[in-house]
Amino acid sequence: MPELNWQPVPGIRLAAAQAGIRYQDRHDLVLMELGPGSTCAAVFTRNAFCAAPVIVAKEHLSATMPHYLLINSGNANAGTGDAGLRASRETCRLLAAASGCAMNQVLPFSTGVIGEDLPTDAFARALPGLLGSLDERNWGLAAQAIMTTDTVPKLVSRSLEIDGANITITGMAKGSGMIRPDMATMLAYVCTDARVPEDILGAVLKTAVKPSFNAITVDGDTSTNDACVLAASGQSGVLIDNLNSTGAKAFGDAVLSVCMELARAIVLDGEGATKLVEILVEQAEDEQQASQVAYTVAHSPLVKTALFASDPNWGRILAAVGRAGVDGLQIDKVRIWLDDLLIVSQGARDAGYTEAAGQAVMDKDSFVVRIALGRGKSSSSVLTCDLSYDYVKINAEYRS
Amino acid sequence: MPELNWQPVPGIRLAAAQAGIRYQDRHDLVLMELGPGSTCAAVFTRNAFCAAPVIVAKEHLSATMPHYLLINSGNANAGTGDAGLRASRETCRLLAAASGCAMNQVLPFSTGVIGEDLPTDAFARALPGLLGSLDERNWGLAAQAIMTTDTVPKLVSRSLEIDGANITITGMAKGSGMIRPDMATMLAYVCTDARVPEDILGAVLKTAVKPSFNAITVDGDTSTNDACVLAASGQSGVLIDNLNSTGAKAFGDAVLSVCMELARAIVLDGEGATKLVEILVEQAEDEQQASQVAYTVAHSPLVKTALFASDPNWGRILAAVGRAGVDGLQIDKVRIWLDDLLIVSQGARDAGYTEAAGQAVMDKDSFVVRIALGRGKSSSSVLTCDLSYDYVKINAEYRS
Repeated sequence: MPELNWQPVPGIRLAAAQAGIRYQDRHDLVLMELGPGSTCAAVFTRNAFCAAPVIVAKEHLSATMPHYLLINSGNANAGTGDAGLRASRETCRLLAAASGCAMNQVLPFSTGVIGEDLPTDAFARALPGLLGSLDERNWGLAAQAIMTTDTVPKLVSRSLEIDGANITITGMAKGSGMIRPDMATMLAYVCTDARVPEDILGAVLKTAVKPSFNAITVDGDTSTNDACVLAASGQSGVLIDNLNSTGAKAFGDAVLSVCMELARAIVLDGEGATKLVEILVEQAEDEQQASQVAYTVAHSPLVKTALFASDPNWGRILAAVGRAGVDGLQIDKVRIWLDDLLIVSQGARDAGYTEAAGQAVMDKDSFVVRIALGRGKSSSSVLTCDLSYDYVKINAEYRS
Repeated sequence: MPELNWQPVPGIRLAAAQAGIRYQDRHDLVLMELGPGSTCAAVFTRNAFCAAPVIVAKEHLSATMPHYLLINSGNANAGTGDAGLRASRETCRLLAAASGCAMNQVLPFSTGVIGEDLPTDAFARALPGLLGSLDERNWGLAAQAIMTTDTVPKLVSRSLEIDGANITITGMAKGSGMIRPDMATMLAYVCTDARVPEDILGAVLKTAVKPSFNAITVDGDTSTNDACVLAASGQSGVLIDNLNSTGAKAFGDAVLSVCMELARAIVLDGEGATKLVEILVEQAEDEQQASQVAYTVAHSPLVKTALFASDPNWGRILAAVGRAGVDGLQIDKVRIWLDDLLIVSQGARDAGYTEAAGQAVMDKDSFVVRIALGRGKSSSSVLTCDLSYDYVKINAEYRS
């Protein structure tokens, strides 16, 4: 993300404040307002140990359409038991009182350290200022305010024409490692000015997160606070109410494109990451099998350190494929490529492979490890990064 | 393993040679002779990508009782396709010709780099010398010769009295990381002079490897060459032919004890390891569930870097438990201890926990992370080590 190039979304206003929740001298509290008539869909972490705000946001979203998203950094409000639930509800109550909306029209999100009490008084002090400074042009400020240990803000836009009218999709995300030390992690907010009924929005979101946010891994650890929200203000007047229409497909592709770019930005900002690597598994019997092999390879510390070393150590990749739990896997049918270079065939190093050619691919900042299982027609892909000294350094030394 | 304290096993003779398979100026080829009337059982890697010698050893063991074990270090003969199978069989044929036994009375084992052709001529040159120097007193030499990147040899003995007679159990192992860079890895050979029918031997071995070699993990990567052999020469005259007898129980306990000590030695010699940590999961619905949680925690890079940093970062442990795939896990019923110190209860930091107390446990070289799930009565334990700078260094820089 060398440069942030984004457009505001009519009907979506944002504000950020220095609430002093944990950090000093930086913005740490964001308010997003979804204008009247907006719709909203969201997906949340599947970690059984989910944070208090995740529980509260799910409750509120199932009850009514949200009017505000309230996002703090610096404190995850996770591992805080009943007190955490009370604090999260209290922040919603405070915003409801200050704005005049219902308490369950507020979705709370928290990211930051685990196991510390959320200071609701900091919210109380900051909310009037936030409500007074809501503006469609505040995306850049908001993308910075939701960062914890991210090194860069992540903000992406797409514009497209549907039925002769222009719509905009803008999204921001934070995350750096699936779960950082005790920083609990991935949040993404994608908004559009199209008019999209809730069920269509949910379907588009589900399709978009699968190959993007749900197919990235830095270290295999799943956050307690992960959430991704897709909101539609309807301000453009463009209605998308049939998933099979050309317009809906273009819209879905654009949302996917925003999610993919944000997901790549998260992996690139992964802890200590120096390389962006796609693990693509093909010719599996079903997608689940392909995904299982892709994640086993993507999580192998030996593969990840080889990626860091730019070492085309195909034995490590093949060994990871071999232990991925595929029943009756015939290793002599497995082929492995680095980009377009065939490195493994018939259970051994391919006859045409040279170490120099492998090295040339591995020296790149970004490449694909492609694995064909020779069993069927399904495929799956995972985006990951390498395991570097800095990963250990960051995670061993970090204690905020 | 500060000191090697071991006893020879009557009926089991060993020899080691500098065959020059890969290393110079060190022993790299071991011959073990199981005297007449010996029995033998073995377990092998479950990695689908298993090495050529594993395939050949399984074939031979299923056909007849072995007379020789032939073990080389420096070359794993893995990822070598059909040529590797031919080479492995050729080494057996060479030994059969030189010794007068049948070819399938030889079990081959290889450990070392993956993907390079096994030089059978080096075997041919070394075999006569090996056959001429077989001796019951060569365990120390053999334990050193099977090492690859191990920093210390691993050799353990137990003696016990059964029915008024003495028997000895001696075992050696090599391994340092489940699979090292491209060094393919864990081998263990345990011998006794008891007389034990093959089926009893197999049952004792299966029981012994489960909580030992099958419950250790350095990095979650499973080798292509893993094997563990239990052989009984019968020379002591002590017969163990009933699994339910007191003698068989004592024998099984002693074999288990040898395997446990060797397994601990392997983890302690893990790549870059500075700490030995047991992850003990209790109150699971079944053992599989307990094991799944234990491995998820043991493999979490965030937990492992916290162990390295001596950081009592309970949020990371709890987050790993939460993503371990236990359906309907109620996180408020989970409790976590460091040794006897309760750190997590009711979904949050325990009220009585202090950081100083947690730090005191984590500063130790060895401790237990105990996790009670509050669901049932099953438990499972995994032995692991921390993730240090040196792990990355060894695995990123290693290229023999």
